[in-house]
Amino acid sequence: MSEIAAQTYTAAILIIGNEILSGRTTDTNTSWIAEKLVERGTILREVRVIPDEEDAVVAAINELRARVDYLFTTGGIGPTHDDITAACVGRAFDVELVPNEEAYQMLADYYGPENVNEARMKMAMIPKGAKLIPNPISGAPGFAIENVFVMAGVPRIMQVMFVNVLSMLKMGAPVLSNTVACSLQESVVAAQLGALQDSWPDIEIGSYPHYRGGVLGLSIVLRSIHNDRLNAATRELLKIIREQGGEPRAVSIRSTGEELGF
Amino acid sequence: MSEIAAQTYTAAILIIGNEILSGRTTDTNTSWIAEKLVERGTILREVRVIPDEEDAVVAAINELRARVDYLFTTGGIGPTHDDITAACVGRAFDVELVPNEEAYQMLADYYGPENVNEARMKMAMIPKGAKLIPNPISGAPGFAIENVFVMAGVPRIMQVMFVNVLSMLKMGAPVLSNTVACSLQESVVAAQLGALQDSWPDIEIGSYPHYRGGVLGLSIVLRSIHNDRLNAATRELLKIIREQGGEPRAVSIRSTGEELGF
Repeated sequence: MSEIAAQTYTAAILIIGNEILSGRTTDTNTSWIAEKLVERGTILREVRVIPDEEDAVVAAINELRARVDYLFTTGGIGPTHDDITAACVGRAFDVELVPNEEAYQMLADYYGPENVNEARMKMAMIPKGAKLIPNPISGAPGFAIENVFVMAGVPRIMQVMFVNVLSMLKMGAPVLSNTVACSLQESVVAAQLGALQDSWPDIEIGSYPHYRGGVLGLSIVLRSIHNDRLNAATRELLKIIREQGGEPRAVSIRSTGEELGF
Repeated sequence: MSEIAAQTYTAAILIIGNEILSGRTTDTNTSWIAEKLVERGTILREVRVIPDEEDAVVAAINELRARVDYLFTTGGIGPTHDDITAACVGRAFDVELVPNEEAYQMLADYYGPENVNEARMKMAMIPKGAKLIPNPISGAPGFAIENVFVMAGVPRIMQVMFVNVLSMLKMGAPVLSNTVACSLQESVVAAQLGALQDSWPDIEIGSYPHYRGGVLGLSIVLRSIHNDRLNAATRELLKIIREQGGEPRAVSIRSTGEELGF
């Protein structure tokens, strides 16, 4: 187990989303959630996108919740026939869905009590024992049961729900990351980056080429829970880039306290 | 099995990508690939994002390739220490990596033969028996082995590779989809959409709320391999929306041959 892994919690996201699988929508929830988690010392270990088919959803919930500290689901909590997440979570935990009085109240407050029709009542059917996650934007709450957090798929609504979810999570060691870009080809610094990784085993070093405006470039990301070691490894990285004839650019520097020499 | 499923092929995408899991990068490859596949009658069944850790990658490759007709991987085929995809595919298929003469030639053509250093030679190590996927942008090829297609993660490079991949796929029945938006609340049409789904079991009906500029809206997507039935179901949908006081808008209409009455 890496040092980062030893001092952080793990998470997975399960996206119940035919609209992602059909290509209609690009998932932006993952990057938003990942950034919020990393600041609080939780590392995203897996993201899975699956169709809204009950057996597939139940199997994925059970597989993932056993493997990580926190499982976040997005999508499928609305009132229509294709909204099956609550039923799937109930089946995964072998817990029945019951009319939740507090959820009913949220819906009545949002729509007006006289307007809570049958479709809306469906959104008050929550697995027994689950804790609600309020949704001030569209009324229907999400919920948490054990280590599973069930949220809306619409990004703005998910984000509002996540504020409440954050307070339910434990705090791990925040992971700091420094991203440095240059215009070198990856294969020019590959050997040196491998050696850098070997000499800093507690720092995760990733190398990501990009292609913009017809020009290949390279971003190198260093991640650590130790500010000072991250500073030191980043300085070595700058040296490597310059020795190979590159000019390092700071894309995002989260370590503090030292002038790194860009 | 649904009618769409009976006449189409299935696919999964495995994204080997710490940069997606850390939140640094938003995955756009999925929607691009999904749209190309659906036109050719292949349905994306699952997307998985996992870290570049060998055991996790090998397990995911073997699980997914057994479950779908085509598995596409993105990421991890470069020259650096964190590029482990070729090694993982080799392990998954129990096939050794060998220096591929054709891949070497591609690298030599790209970099110049005198510049193929050790890091670059790594990119010519390909699982035995794999068929190469050319990469005119950055030299290092992807490859296909059985039903697994290994591509770069950089979107522009993946897209260029995918053009060659397409010719290796079988052609299923193209899936047509019509997307209609309105400003009704989802719960106002939920019962009617459920009834519509019941009366058109061969058409997949999805309901997706959105939230833009502080206003909730709704997109409804109908998908089918039958143009005429899709037209007919779409007309019924327009009627439902109007009966509930909404004004349907055509977002994307792929069925042809009839005026649908927007």
